[in-house]
Amino acid sequence: MDIGITGLGRMGANMARRWLRGGHRVVVHNRSRGPVDELATAGAVPAYTLDELVAALKPPRAVWVMLPAGEVTERAIVALANLMAPGDTIVDAGNTMYKDDLRRAEELKARGIYYVDQGTSGGIWGLELGYCLMVGGDADVVARLEPAFRTLAPQDGYLHCGPVGSGHFVKMVHNGVEYGMMQAYAEGFEIMRSKTEFNLDLHKIAAVWNHGSVVRSWLLELAEDAFRQDPHLESIQGYVEDSGEGRWTIQTAIELDVPAPVITLSLFERFHSRKPESFAAKVLAALRKGFGGHPVKPA
Amino acid sequence: MDIGITGLGRMGANMARRWLRGGHRVVVHNRSRGPVDELATAGAVPAYTLDELVAALKPPRAVWVMLPAGEVTERAIVALANLMAPGDTIVDAGNTMYKDDLRRAEELKARGIYYVDQGTSGGIWGLELGYCLMVGGDADVVARLEPAFRTLAPQDGYLHCGPVGSGHFVKMVHNGVEYGMMQAYAEGFEIMRSKTEFNLDLHKIAAVWNHGSVVRSWLLELAEDAFRQDPHLESIQGYVEDSGEGRWTIQTAIELDVPAPVITLSLFERFHSRKPESFAAKVLAALRKGFGGHPVKPA
Amino acid sequence: MDIGITGLGRMGANMARRWLRGGHRVVVHNRSRGPVDELATAGAVPAYTLDELVAALKPPRAVWVMLPAGEVTERAIVALANLMAPGDTIVDAGNTMYKDDLRRAEELKARGIYYVDQGTSGGIWGLELGYCLMVGGDADVVARLEPAFRTLAPQDGYLHCGPVGSGHFVKMVHNGVEYGMMQAYAEGFEIMRSKTEFNLDLHKIAAVWNHGSVVRSWLLELAEDAFRQDPHLESIQGYVEDSGEGRWTIQTAIELDVPAPVITLSLFERFHSRKPESFAAKVLAALRKGFGGHPVKPA
Amino acid sequence: MDIGITGLGRMGANMARRWLRGGHRVVVHNRSRGPVDELATAGAVPAYTLDELVAALKPPRAVWVMLPAGEVTERAIVALANLMAPGDTIVDAGNTMYKDDLRRAEELKARGIYYVDQGTSGGIWGLELGYCLMVGGDADVVARLEPAFRTLAPQDGYLHCGPVGSGHFVKMVHNGVEYGMMQAYAEGFEIMRSKTEFNLDLHKIAAVWNHGSVVRSWLLELAEDAFRQDPHLESIQGYVEDSGEGRWTIQTAIELDVPAPVITLSLFERFHSRKPESFAAKVLAALRKGFGGHPVKPA
Repeated sequence: MDIGITGLGRMGANMARRWLRGGHRVVVHNRSRGPVDELATAGAVPAYTLDELVAALKPPRAVWVMLPAGEVTERAIVALANLMAPGDTIVDAGNTMYKDDLRRAEELKARGIYYVDQGTSGGIWGLELGYCLMVGGDADVVARLEPAFRTLAPQDGYLHCGPVGSGHFVKMVHNGVEYGMMQAYAEGFEIMRSKTEFNLDLHKIAAVWNHGSVVRSWLLELAEDAFRQDPHLESIQGYVEDSGEGRWTIQTAIELDVPAPVITLSLFERFHSRKPESFAAKVLAALRKGFGGHPVKPA
Repeated sequence: MDIGITGLGRMGANMARRWLRGGHRVVVHNRSRGPVDELATAGAVPAYTLDELVAALKPPRAVWVMLPAGEVTERAIVALANLMAPGDTIVDAGNTMYKDDLRRAEELKARGIYYVDQGTSGGIWGLELGYCLMVGGDADVVARLEPAFRTLAPQDGYLHCGPVGSGHFVKMVHNGVEYGMMQAYAEGFEIMRSKTEFNLDLHKIAAVWNHGSVVRSWLLELAEDAFRQDPHLESIQGYVEDSGEGRWTIQTAIELDVPAPVITLSLFERFHSRKPESFAAKVLAALRKGFGGHPVKPA
Repeated sequence: MDIGITGLGRMGANMARRWLRGGHRVVVHNRSRGPVDELATAGAVPAYTLDELVAALKPPRAVWVMLPAGEVTERAIVALANLMAPGDTIVDAGNTMYKDDLRRAEELKARGIYYVDQGTSGGIWGLELGYCLMVGGDADVVARLEPAFRTLAPQDGYLHCGPVGSGHFVKMVHNGVEYGMMQAYAEGFEIMRSKTEFNLDLHKIAAVWNHGSVVRSWLLELAEDAFRQDPHLESIQGYVEDSGEGRWTIQTAIELDVPAPVITLSLFERFHSRKPESFAAKVLAALRKGFGGHPVKPA
Repeated sequence: MDIGITGLGRMGANMARRWLRGGHRVVVHNRSRGPVDELATAGAVPAYTLDELVAALKPPRAVWVMLPAGEVTERAIVALANLMAPGDTIVDAGNTMYKDDLRRAEELKARGIYYVDQGTSGGIWGLELGYCLMVGGDADVVARLEPAFRTLAPQDGYLHCGPVGSGHFVKMVHNGVEYGMMQAYAEGFEIMRSKTEFNLDLHKIAAVWNHGSVVRSWLLELAEDAFRQDPHLESIQGYVEDSGEGRWTIQTAIELDVPAPVITLSLFERFHSRKPESFAAKVLAALRKGFGGHPVKPA
């Protein structure tokens, strides 16, 4: 089918490539020219402005937006909507908060433009293995885009989760679960490493766990790779970013009265990793000195 | 090789079957006769007492103990040791606390008997897929038992983790990680189910996540199966046991000064699942009434 | 001074009484007539509509709004602002989210009306002991209202925390801390009660802890009272509401990258208290059955 | 009454002083001579060896042991027991694990020596304000020692909690609660400090909260003092020790199937305060790089 895309970062460029391999006609746009030209050599139709992007597609158009969530995505969608015609569709494939989807879909509907949210998992491996797609939107709109989704997804397909917002909602929860799983492994490896008298080989443990244990998973295969390359992770700082979906998952859990201790603590552990010192800990030290005369370490 | 085993519960019986399929001579013992007779028909040598078990093996013997951790295992090992000779080996394949391994190995060493601890993961699927084995013990003793370990394990093998105790230690941490992963998924599914306006199909979500997402895993395949059979888990009470290794993992983390919030909270959530009401919550309700006049619900 | 107040629930009525005792002229309004009439007999000027309330006050007026946070407060403030004149002041004494303060103050400023946020702690005891007041707003506006604040507060006064929003912000964090402290006590009492072989008397323990221990506090005095009245809290259900500030504290902590595990877990424990059964726990039970064949309890 | 004490650290010396002020005859012993001589000048009977300590007391003797829990206390009690006679009593006033009390009482009973466990709270303030005492032991033995307990305690007394072990048990839980309360305050202060646009004065906030708020407490008075002396706690490192009772409280909660998330997370936050970097965080960083190509910070 005819596919437009704006945002050719790592994820967007790989999606475009996968579409090209799938035989689609792909019109590609990016803020800077480099990635556009690169994909043009791979067979894509280059568009150096949003006007060119929209003009190069036959109505009813479908344009994927694969940009950082928030302001950047918002501006791109507004600009696109101003150029598109009733019957066209915008697919937000980034990590947008689902409540923004609901608002946007409402706004675009008034102008006759359809909106679909696509949660996209698979990271840098999606190009080869296919992306796990969680899609939200009206059934007939999603159906019309199905050839594009089928090509992005692995053989067994993608999921139309439900109405607008549900795709990003499911992707958000996916990332919350991801935080919790990662932290579970991380705690386990730290406990094993701290039992120095056993001198355990974490790479071999990750490897054997991937053969028949209850905790085998793709993340554990990545851990196996990481320990193979750097058995004590000496080259890496224990500094961990978070990209927002974990925070939204917790906020959502709280709105829904669902206890989510594991996902929440996983986020807090990331906060710790980024703080050289905690003010809370200073308060504790001051209080211990106050009631028990326990010595404090001078700063 | 010549293998003895006492304890023919689900796990023990399956291990014996896998050894038999692997061409070993297996002498089997159990407290009750039924499982012994059943395995005898599958080719095992039956032993109706521990004396018979030991007598039916050629020295140096190797006897696997696959019994509930604690008193039952302790008694069996003491009884076996009294019947065995210097150079023989006892393998504890259950879920023993690693500190008990250290003590026992010391006691048996004085009598010339070797001790090996085998952490065994894979559950009811181990018979077909092979067991993930984490083994602790002296290198030469473990090497002598290797044919038995190789047969139990999947194709890519088992792991000799380190000295006595290290096998059960790694298995203990494995179970702690398992708790955390399970709780991460459980929170995610509860959040999605609570977002009723999206009317999400948890079975399809588990399925699509197993195709290319970051959180794909064997546990998620089991979740996919569970939701296929009972989409809203209506037939199941939310009552969750724990078998001890999670507790020990937390205790160990605390001894090693390792923060393990995710594993710990996973255990506490299981405690909650087994309590119809919490006394702590009563205290909270009483305090809220005390300072703010907030009404309490009468019992 | 001349004081207006709308909202004569438990907190509002007691504030009005304390002002009357302090010699202020207090004009009182409430949606229903009963509380207005009751306070009129105690010396207040009755106002049966907001028009009457505003008309009965000399400019520059100051009207306290003591209503449930959210829609109700919002509507009252909009209605008041439509009746008031430049130079007048609205004081929101409820539990408003501080971001709503910032927005409202901006909107009112355009009309020349001042806005002050007053966080109010002390519960039903404030009438006798004085309210702990945390006030946010422009310094000169707050200064003008000082006589009213001084009368509400205990002898040692109230705190002007900073600009608009800061009063409710500090009150919000106060409530988060309150959740954590309450949960700490609650866990301690549940642990002691569960150690049945010691047959501990929780009332006596609360009492002795209030004499010289590190954990003595006003909340513990309330616990002492509660256990005196009902030693095993048999008359109370372990069902615990939350009023919103705890949620906002956690949301704020997350926005500020501050780990707040204790406050967050305190909220999640309240969620648990209100759920007869957790879907997450059902997922866990289903998974345990899946990998280990562990029996589930039928629903 | 006639009182012996060994262990004249800060707590022990202050207890001896309080007894002397109360008119008791106090025989004092310490490993080093200095504290013994110092208390002798205050009226105590000096004893430079345990033999002298026991010899200087009239049977039936009562000797308080106020030493670091664990080996040191164990050795002192064994040594004392070897010198004492049937009918004498040993009071362990330190922070002993209650299970050690149970064991020791059993051992001493066989020799006719009584054992009492005294949990002691109040820190460095106990000398002036009295110590909060939680006492475990046989009722008649405790009754005989009552004059000593009454003098140590504040006016309203001490608590005989129950049988041997119960005093230290209640003190252990007290410390667990203390951890949770401290962490609740610490989180609140860190959140407020991180809201830099409000430029909040934490000292004034602690002060106003101590006047009429729900969270007022003795710990908060200590926080008020600490912020008065060092408003931003600039002189203090956020490094927080823990003394053992918190760990035991968690272990006990787990043994009793009681969820104790707040107490447990409070301990884990202390672990974090003492770690410049977490291995778990390195694992997380490595995994994020693995699936998403997210950059890691080089070590």
